[in-house]
Amino acid sequence: MKPLVPVILAGGVGSRLWPLSRALFSKPFHALFGERTLLQNTVLRAHKATQRRPIIVCNEDNRFLVAEQLRSIGVAWEHIVLEPEGRNTAPAIALAAHMALGDTDDSRLLILPADHLVEDEAGFVEAVEMAADASEGGAVVTFGVRPTRPETGYGYIELEAEGRQGVQPIRSFVEKPDQQRARAFSDSGRHLWNSGMFLTDARIALTEIAAHSAHIGEAVAASVREGRSDLDFFRPSNTFLQSPAISFDVAVMEKTARAAVLPVDFGWSDIGSWESVLEATGVDGQGNCFAGDVLPLDVEDTLIHADHRLVSAIGVGRLIIVETADAVLVADRGRAQDVTNLVARLKGSGRSEHLLHPEVFRPWGSYEVVARGERYQAKRLRIKPGARISLQKHRQRAEHWVVVRGAAEVTRDDEIFTLRENESTYIPIGVKHRLGNAGNQMLEIVEVQVGSYLGEDDIVRFEDRYGRTTD
Amino acid sequence: MKPLVPVILAGGVGSRLWPLSRALFSKPFHALFGERTLLQNTVLRAHKATQRRPIIVCNEDNRFLVAEQLRSIGVAWEHIVLEPEGRNTAPAIALAAHMALGDTDDSRLLILPADHLVEDEAGFVEAVEMAADASEGGAVVTFGVRPTRPETGYGYIELEAEGRQGVQPIRSFVEKPDQQRARAFSDSGRHLWNSGMFLTDARIALTEIAAHSAHIGEAVAASVREGRSDLDFFRPSNTFLQSPAISFDVAVMEKTARAAVLPVDFGWSDIGSWESVLEATGVDGQGNCFAGDVLPLDVEDTLIHADHRLVSAIGVGRLIIVETADAVLVADRGRAQDVTNLVARLKGSGRSEHLLHPEVFRPWGSYEVVARGERYQAKRLRIKPGARISLQKHRQRAEHWVVVRGAAEVTRDDEIFTLRENESTYIPIGVKHRLGNAGNQMLEIVEVQVGSYLGEDDIVRFEDRYGRTTD
Repeated sequence: MKPLVPVILAGGVGSRLWPLSRALFSKPFHALFGERTLLQNTVLRAHKATQRRPIIVCNEDNRFLVAEQLRSIGVAWEHIVLEPEGRNTAPAIALAAHMALGDTDDSRLLILPADHLVEDEAGFVEAVEMAADASEGGAVVTFGVRPTRPETGYGYIELEAEGRQGVQPIRSFVEKPDQQRARAFSDSGRHLWNSGMFLTDARIALTEIAAHSAHIGEAVAASVREGRSDLDFFRPSNTFLQSPAISFDVAVMEKTARAAVLPVDFGWSDIGSWESVLEATGVDGQGNCFAGDVLPLDVEDTLIHADHRLVSAIGVGRLIIVETADAVLVADRGRAQDVTNLVARLKGSGRSEHLLHPEVFRPWGSYEVVARGERYQAKRLRIKPGARISLQKHRQRAEHWVVVRGAAEVTRDDEIFTLRENESTYIPIGVKHRLGNAGNQMLEIVEVQVGSYLGEDDIVRFEDRYGRTTD
Repeated sequence: MKPLVPVILAGGVGSRLWPLSRALFSKPFHALFGERTLLQNTVLRAHKATQRRPIIVCNEDNRFLVAEQLRSIGVAWEHIVLEPEGRNTAPAIALAAHMALGDTDDSRLLILPADHLVEDEAGFVEAVEMAADASEGGAVVTFGVRPTRPETGYGYIELEAEGRQGVQPIRSFVEKPDQQRARAFSDSGRHLWNSGMFLTDARIALTEIAAHSAHIGEAVAASVREGRSDLDFFRPSNTFLQSPAISFDVAVMEKTARAAVLPVDFGWSDIGSWESVLEATGVDGQGNCFAGDVLPLDVEDTLIHADHRLVSAIGVGRLIIVETADAVLVADRGRAQDVTNLVARLKGSGRSEHLLHPEVFRPWGSYEVVARGERYQAKRLRIKPGARISLQKHRQRAEHWVVVRGAAEVTRDDEIFTLRENESTYIPIGVKHRLGNAGNQMLEIVEVQVGSYLGEDDIVRFEDRYGRTTD
């Protein structure tokens, strides 16, 4: 039987989960339920069902986050494919298909968005096996979830006939309905939630895309031919951007005769909004769902997510309250969908709260600005074992480093020396320097920068093992 | 005419304004309206009316805050009197009376809580003059505010007759009423809000307290005899704590024949809750009142106070939302009074959010913990011109200092040297050290502490110009 390769689509931004989800640290990378992130759970789930290494498709900007999150659960990957910009699911799936066929000239793909929730993993594995069998016959199988409520937030798939089990033909795809139609659908027994998960032969996927959306096929094929591997990552060329942004449903499923659906029932949610987080997490006796340091007084039907500080509430109900290091959201539950508009306004006003988290991830680890003032800022740097920051200098700032944990290898001009915990050094303006982790545990440094200009762009790189030009 | 001395009572905690108001940085010390704090406005208002230096009565813990806030508006004080613990207003007023009579053996007191709002200062000054005249005849005058709404949050003063102007007799003091009685009072023309502001001869105040509440008189008198001056401050002895905690109204006004009231009308509020902040600040077209970085979407009749970060709200109404560096409050406006219960619960659970602000004030300036980790923490220190931290050493931590603004005089063992902006030094464990501001602008230091124990109590003091033993 052809190998079944998991394809994890991690390109989504999930702006409806702002302020937790940000463009540069988006929904798949957060642990909304328990210890592991949505991406990590998806990858592990896919491995259970396929026993194979995944292909991850994500945005250029999130590459280190993906690699780090897979490493930290000890999962190796086949490829991490970097989209220069998102073009919706059809081009992403075409990318993955090319990569898979590059490895073994014949394989099938289990295509899963990175940010969905599945409660019944055994049920999921079983469903994948059924879909895999059907794909042998050339079917392009999508997973349709039996509705548990009249949901207006999902698209629906209409079956040819009710009550049938297993993979079966599709009558039509239906857009997100209004309340009334949603109620009708959830009772009909002929409608399923469109989950956006697929199982298909890789070659057939490409043929179908080429047949029904030639532009996508050509642009993606070329971008792969012109692409290059870079350490852990594969970068398709920017020809990829010439592909139209179209979903796999619209590009292929709604058009091909091979489309088929498997009705499933494994406790699925796309975690599309804070409201659905509330539903998926479950609530206490007062209908509340609290995470973090929360002090409530007469609170009902409310989600409170306290990320950094104490959040207290008095006499409120039906609210979404989300607190992060740099932003707080208080929204009526009925308006959870409007968070997107808010994020759009942030973008419009040239702010960064929609984009960045205070902690910024880099190939060598991460940094966080902990104090800012006129002419100075203090950062906490975390550098991974074996990692090194590029050899560089700054034109307008000096840097003081204090090692607070681990051991550092410091290059300053022509000297190279080791700094241990509780030792410090000084890098004058204009002096070449490099900081590396000399030990086998995480290195933590408090860096105090002093100067007239402290922007990240005041940097001259001489060497960078991560092949970076700017960050 | 006898000198009229302003007495500012700054001992209140104002826990109903949590999380902004804290025991160690309470309501009087916050700038709720414009640039100046409530204390600063009260002091300046009192100076307008009396042209004399104030006597401030406050809690031991807030002494540096009081001195700093008066200095920063260039106001000198007669005394800052430190209560070891609050005992309500009667003992505080007795303290102030003793201090005033110690200076000039004959004087009168204008007694003002430090955390009230007065909109019409001219009207205030005029009222003080009228009350001062009446006090010549031996009256103990309280200021009664003509009601502008049926307020249930204030006590009331009932007049002998309606419609009379000027200082006049009191029929009775009335406790906080329910809605119905409050409505009756605000229409009666015979009821005034009890503002807690007084004007009285200092000697008469003491005689009346002695006559009606002997315990207070004796305890306070003894505590002043046994008290000592300490730099800027006067410390009554702990005998003060033997005084019962009673308000001046209950101890004196409700009993003495000298009690009189002056009906006033100068836009007064005691800012007793977030609800009253909202009323005093005024609202925009949607009935909102926003301070700080706020991003609203369909928000009505809501107060949002963003102290440190972006606060966004969607589709909510009639809420109080207050964000500070370490705590967020979301409360229904109708429940604004219950904030006190919340604070009580914080206290009960042994937390510190009711007590401390992240920025901690010291005689020499302030510090703030900006980063914490295993075995280390980073602080931002602000040291005032001319100020110095005590000569000290630590048994379990080393310190790294980076000067990011200003110039520092560093004592390390037997050396003394100057560190300028962008210079740094290292203080090993157990080494005697002292840090002072060597310049005439604020000195800013980033201090990185490394060690097995980082508590504030790991400190051995050799010399302290502020006569401190612990902090």
